[in-house]
Amino acid sequence: MSALEREVADSAERVPLSPVRLQEPVPPPPGRSVEGKLIRRLLSYVGNPPIEFVLWSGERISTVTAPVTRVHITDRRTLFGLVKDPHIRFGDAYSEGRIVVEGDLVRFIETMYRAAPVQPKAARTLGSFLRRSRHRRNTPDGSRENIHHHYDIGNDFYSLWLGDTMAYTCAYYPRPEATLDEAQFAKFEHVCRKLRLRAGETVVEAGFGWGGLALYMARKHGVKVRAFNISHEQVVYARERALREGFASQIEYVEDDYRNISGRYDAFVSVGMLEHVGVENYPTLGGVAHSVLGSNGRGFIHSIGRNRPAPLHPWITKRIFPGAYPPSLSEFMQIFEPWDFSVLDVENLRLHYAQTLTHWLELFDANAAKVRAMFDEKFERMWRLYLAGSIAGFTTGALQLFQVLFAPKGNNNVPMTRAHLYASPAG
Amino acid sequence: MSALEREVADSAERVPLSPVRLQEPVPPPPGRSVEGKLIRRLLSYVGNPPIEFVLWSGERISTVTAPVTRVHITDRRTLFGLVKDPHIRFGDAYSEGRIVVEGDLVRFIETMYRAAPVQPKAARTLGSFLRRSRHRRNTPDGSRENIHHHYDIGNDFYSLWLGDTMAYTCAYYPRPEATLDEAQFAKFEHVCRKLRLRAGETVVEAGFGWGGLALYMARKHGVKVRAFNISHEQVVYARERALREGFASQIEYVEDDYRNISGRYDAFVSVGMLEHVGVENYPTLGGVAHSVLGSNGRGFIHSIGRNRPAPLHPWITKRIFPGAYPPSLSEFMQIFEPWDFSVLDVENLRLHYAQTLTHWLELFDANAAKVRAMFDEKFERMWRLYLAGSIAGFTTGALQLFQVLFAPKGNNNVPMTRAHLYASPAG
Repeated sequence: MSALEREVADSAERVPLSPVRLQEPVPPPPGRSVEGKLIRRLLSYVGNPPIEFVLWSGERISTVTAPVTRVHITDRRTLFGLVKDPHIRFGDAYSEGRIVVEGDLVRFIETMYRAAPVQPKAARTLGSFLRRSRHRRNTPDGSRENIHHHYDIGNDFYSLWLGDTMAYTCAYYPRPEATLDEAQFAKFEHVCRKLRLRAGETVVEAGFGWGGLALYMARKHGVKVRAFNISHEQVVYARERALREGFASQIEYVEDDYRNISGRYDAFVSVGMLEHVGVENYPTLGGVAHSVLGSNGRGFIHSIGRNRPAPLHPWITKRIFPGAYPPSLSEFMQIFEPWDFSVLDVENLRLHYAQTLTHWLELFDANAAKVRAMFDEKFERMWRLYLAGSIAGFTTGALQLFQVLFAPKGNNNVPMTRAHLYASPAG
Repeated sequence: MSALEREVADSAERVPLSPVRLQEPVPPPPGRSVEGKLIRRLLSYVGNPPIEFVLWSGERISTVTAPVTRVHITDRRTLFGLVKDPHIRFGDAYSEGRIVVEGDLVRFIETMYRAAPVQPKAARTLGSFLRRSRHRRNTPDGSRENIHHHYDIGNDFYSLWLGDTMAYTCAYYPRPEATLDEAQFAKFEHVCRKLRLRAGETVVEAGFGWGGLALYMARKHGVKVRAFNISHEQVVYARERALREGFASQIEYVEDDYRNISGRYDAFVSVGMLEHVGVENYPTLGGVAHSVLGSNGRGFIHSIGRNRPAPLHPWITKRIFPGAYPPSLSEFMQIFEPWDFSVLDVENLRLHYAQTLTHWLELFDANAAKVRAMFDEKFERMWRLYLAGSIAGFTTGALQLFQVLFAPKGNNNVPMTRAHLYASPAG
């Protein structure tokens, strides 16, 4: 906790923070100061959310009479930066403790998302433009750098908050009260049921994270898995775990790009890799699936998505996930349509991802001291903002989570209904 | 049955027709005749399917040694027409009895579909071009003419083969052995469950056919329905039935275009209308749904679709469904993306439509004499070809059936899982 945060926390004991206790709000000040005018302009730009800014001088500025949360700005330079480039500078200043948010961070970001002006219908064009201008493209070399940036920062760090499965993708909560580990296993099972895996079949996985799904498929469904990943740290971890748990002969973890997948398999699966593929490579990804599946094959892709084409938040792209892009469904379909694949089932698990992230953030917060010890306070704040912002993205519908099941054209060896997915509790 | 068909049927008693009984095929003739050369060219154009042509002269021509079915051509003019414009002339000549197919018609068309050369990847561009060049567009006036052409040819005719529900859309078979009527009611229930209808809610329906779904929703789920349709015959029928069954106060059947829908409703539903909307009008359709749904609203669209953009078969467009176009999912999404709708669930019921059509064709065949009496033999043959061709379209994967559930952005009042769809048998 920074000095300012301690101060805010102390003052919170005296000055109540919750909206209920903000019943007697200070009336908005005249705002004649330069700072006041800048903040009003900023608030208008982001749709006049019901928040109040508190400046280093103690001045309070809001455009509503009953703000639900307060944001402290510690110095003039931070304010000027925020006005100049709010999308990047907010996250950076928050990470550095130069912006402090009172109360619940998720609730604050939700408030911001809900106030945001509706994007113009030209979002597709803007999105295309921004995608093109992204600095590091998902070529094989670019992908390796992009993936290294995020996934190779330390298995010990991720193991603090991802739970036993080390699954770093949306879980599936058959019951609202399921634990994180239960929900991750239920997700594995849900995926396997969608693919109708049978013992003895072969599966190829594109992007395997720390290897949890491959392990589950091998253990519970008796399939052979060949899994591809370009994160070196993850590959090392997955191989060790498979060896330790006795599945080394059933699973081959390959450190290579999905573009180099070859062979013939009964099923193609990819959970949480598509975000890093880039729309320009979707037909290539579909071509890989097409080349490895026979006429009775099944394919499955799980990815964060959007209601319509839009770039990822620029701060997330810059600091957290370089090269990442969650597609809209029309973009998603560019994987399948060039290859005449039939899409069999699309499920949107948006609220499951909000719950998953809530569980991750709880573990992250519980282990905050360890995170600080591994990295520093800036890193801790940056990642908290990323996790909290992601929760808000899913609860407000700024982000979606799509599971797409597909099969080669004319594969009639598919179940008539989806009742088998729900025949008994998943996991 | 035409004179030639009788002759073929008689000869079938002597010359076995099934592939099993074709064990000693006549070796392909030298094919030196002009007709032989033309037919070989035609066969090559359609991917050399394993069929044999039999000419008026008795000459037999095939490009394979073991044809699975035989097609008779009765005269030289028919052959020349077929070579000139096979997509249109086959259907026309078949309807007029100048082409006769031995054995099972569905199986013959499946054979043709499966042999067809893979479409080039440029299908999207070609499809866009053909859509633009379609002669009668789906403007409000154009739609009225297009719909009149197909749906106003007589309720008595449709009642011969659609079953009790008069539902003229894909049914849902929870069990493979369900009857047509059971499966149509199960479809109604499946739709209502997806929409999570609650008693007292209001529903607007775009395109209501003969009114069966609206009646089911009112009767079983206690909702009020306002339903729109531009087929005059269907509107008259639906109003009479609702009055007769005591639901006139709960359902308002409006004879008007979906573009004129207004008001506020809990749910928007459209089953089997999208095929007639035209891709150019998808954002308009989405705008209608967007304007009538509140933040807790739900929407549902059920339509024939494609794996990728492609025009409908030109003969079907010309003779059966003017102005019709089944979209690929990327095209389908142009309804939702401009309005920031979240797609919650996509289900592909392709094999259910094959089964529905099989049940329809059985009833159609059982009532063939009545169809001939109402219209003529050409009409009967034309519609049999359309129904059989549609079965083959769905069994081979040339056609898909998509059910798409959607909701306004950020509607969190949706179930976490789809287990409620399967909690008890539907219907």
